[in-house]
Amino acid sequence: MSRIVMKFGGTSVADLDRIRIVAQRVRHQIAQGDEVAVVVSAMAGATNQLIAWCQSLSPLHDAREYDAVVATGEQVTCGLLAIALQALGIEARSFLGWQVPVVTDGAHGTARIQAIDAQKMNDCLAAGQVPVMAGFQGIGPDHRVTTLGRGGSDTSAVALAAAIGADRCDIYTDVDGVYTTDPRITARAQRMDRIAYEEMLELASVGAKVLQTRSVELAMKQRVRVQVLSSFGTPDDPGPGTLLVDEDEIVEKEIVTGIAYSRDEAKVTVKRVPDRPGVAACIFGPLADAHVNVDMIVQNVSDDGTTDMTFTLGSAELPRAIASLEAARGAIGYTRLITDKDVVKISVVGVGMRSHAGVASTMFRTLADKGINIQVISTSEIKVSVLVAEEYTELAVRALHTAYGLDGA
Amino acid sequence: MSRIVMKFGGTSVADLDRIRIVAQRVRHQIAQGDEVAVVVSAMAGATNQLIAWCQSLSPLHDAREYDAVVATGEQVTCGLLAIALQALGIEARSFLGWQVPVVTDGAHGTARIQAIDAQKMNDCLAAGQVPVMAGFQGIGPDHRVTTLGRGGSDTSAVALAAAIGADRCDIYTDVDGVYTTDPRITARAQRMDRIAYEEMLELASVGAKVLQTRSVELAMKQRVRVQVLSSFGTPDDPGPGTLLVDEDEIVEKEIVTGIAYSRDEAKVTVKRVPDRPGVAACIFGPLADAHVNVDMIVQNVSDDGTTDMTFTLGSAELPRAIASLEAARGAIGYTRLITDKDVVKISVVGVGMRSHAGVASTMFRTLADKGINIQVISTSEIKVSVLVAEEYTELAVRALHTAYGLDGA
Repeated sequence: MSRIVMKFGGTSVADLDRIRIVAQRVRHQIAQGDEVAVVVSAMAGATNQLIAWCQSLSPLHDAREYDAVVATGEQVTCGLLAIALQALGIEARSFLGWQVPVVTDGAHGTARIQAIDAQKMNDCLAAGQVPVMAGFQGIGPDHRVTTLGRGGSDTSAVALAAAIGADRCDIYTDVDGVYTTDPRITARAQRMDRIAYEEMLELASVGAKVLQTRSVELAMKQRVRVQVLSSFGTPDDPGPGTLLVDEDEIVEKEIVTGIAYSRDEAKVTVKRVPDRPGVAACIFGPLADAHVNVDMIVQNVSDDGTTDMTFTLGSAELPRAIASLEAARGAIGYTRLITDKDVVKISVVGVGMRSHAGVASTMFRTLADKGINIQVISTSEIKVSVLVAEEYTELAVRALHTAYGLDGA
Repeated sequence: MSRIVMKFGGTSVADLDRIRIVAQRVRHQIAQGDEVAVVVSAMAGATNQLIAWCQSLSPLHDAREYDAVVATGEQVTCGLLAIALQALGIEARSFLGWQVPVVTDGAHGTARIQAIDAQKMNDCLAAGQVPVMAGFQGIGPDHRVTTLGRGGSDTSAVALAAAIGADRCDIYTDVDGVYTTDPRITARAQRMDRIAYEEMLELASVGAKVLQTRSVELAMKQRVRVQVLSSFGTPDDPGPGTLLVDEDEIVEKEIVTGIAYSRDEAKVTVKRVPDRPGVAACIFGPLADAHVNVDMIVQNVSDDGTTDMTFTLGSAELPRAIASLEAARGAIGYTRLITDKDVVKISVVGVGMRSHAGVASTMFRTLADKGINIQVISTSEIKVSVLVAEEYTELAVRALHTAYGLDGA
């Protein structure tokens, strides 16, 4: 007997028929002899509707009230799923965040889980019942409802799995696993049976939005085995999916396991800043103060005592970055700002890179062969990223997918 | 300065525009120098949608899960109204049932309020904030969400008014007060400025569905001054409405203040039961066991040792009543059951009846003049009710409205 946390996302519980299928899937899991706890998201679309209402009433709404409103999405689903399970003869009961309790910090709207009290969930399991926990929500130090931010139900599920010592956390979603790249870009993308946490983190952070990044971090830290599965298979067979594991569990390490891309990028070049010690601090200090997350940074070779500084950031943060740099213009002393939103960040990822040379040069040569100009480069231990013009996205991804031998039949 | 509880029903908060108008109305009340606490229902239609989902998944759903699902309706509205108030510069915060807490018994789906802890609400008011409480919900002894049954938000509002010692509880609804009869039946119906609790109770229980009966009982018991007002006036002027007061406060008592009717009635005649002691118990015992609420009862004059027993009940309970009587046929010993759903109960109500004779005879004569046959009669201290064929509803109501001098210009 294993203890399994099953998490179902918004498309998996989008309507009553889908909720009935989820109930059947849970029944099938129990029939395997497993103990099951469930975590659910809101019905697809429900959260967006609730957010739109809050924003319409006040663009600068109180995050505490936003949380009270938005958390109802998961409250509805967990009650409905408990009813659907009972209709199949399975003893089940819903748990809201404050009932478990899922204790979070006080950052309403983007709260972080501090602790999950496992007592009631364990009691429920011990009594042969299926606890159905509302994802995405908790209770803050002010005794009010908190929410975890977009995709937070993944984190709820992983945190619950860690709290109750589950053998595995199965995340049912609208894709059937993690792919070597976006299957919409190339039909040759292949589902991976296994992926290391670190690779998943890099893929998630550069745009392969299968799991919330924070949930992968938590899974890695707490060593929770996470499996990504499709909720669109039959209730008895969701298909093989992708298992997130520790790097050590992957015997035959591929040098590159995946190609990711992110279009939500923007590039800023600060022209002709004095090339003196402290100028980088002059530029990036104000940006940090304005809560702008800078990603890649390049400083050009100095020329006549001035240099150009180029960096990338999420395109949504561009207006804030510009405002902040213009306010600091006197202190920095640049001549002008050049911004570009028509860029894409393309990354090759793989834990095998640690022990193999030549990954970056293969990337550069492949792109050069296709006539694609690289604007910015950044590397980490298991990733090489480049910024190129957005129009080359598909061409670049396909070429790299082939170059690293990832193409399927 | 007065302390006012303002309660807004589903049509008053049906969409974002209506919620904004409610916020303006609260602002206007505060501008009068009053302290205000607010109670809200779910957006019109929301509760029905949630109930339909529960029923679709399982007709015999777990009432505890039903409560968790259905209570989200008010949770959404109280958060949204708090945001709308803040957008007007009014400090406000939402309170869910479990946060106040509104302590109820454990009868999920039809829970009764046992106590409202006034501490947090009073603190909130003392801090110059407007507490916005979710109506219809509470927390049960099992630490789970409970709901109060249809119209329960009225009761939430009256209970809150009693708990915080409010000077008045204003119930904003889709009618502008309590009328002498249904204005859809006669344009001569008049809004009453005042009505005694007892009269309101009788009108409510016979079908004038302005307030939940339980809320009126509670208001009477706790001596809460309740005002029924229209939410469709301007934010600055809801119009005069109707004030519920103690009988003693009505100086000039009308003999009859209102004519009510209820079409949700059914009549059952049990034919030729043995006329012996204990036969009534044989009939009504099984009905009580089956939770059938019997209303009017008539026992015919005995004839050849047998008699006919006629009674009325809510038409929704008819199938249960028939099943129960058929099961007890051997014990009762009747020849057959006759049922009739095409009946209406018409009632004349007024506290002045206590000191005036002739009310019933005026009713009987008026109906006889119109050729309407009375099938069953029942009376209380402040009410006379008759059962007649449903087709006479409008004719009877109009004739009685005129006969008791209630017609307006």
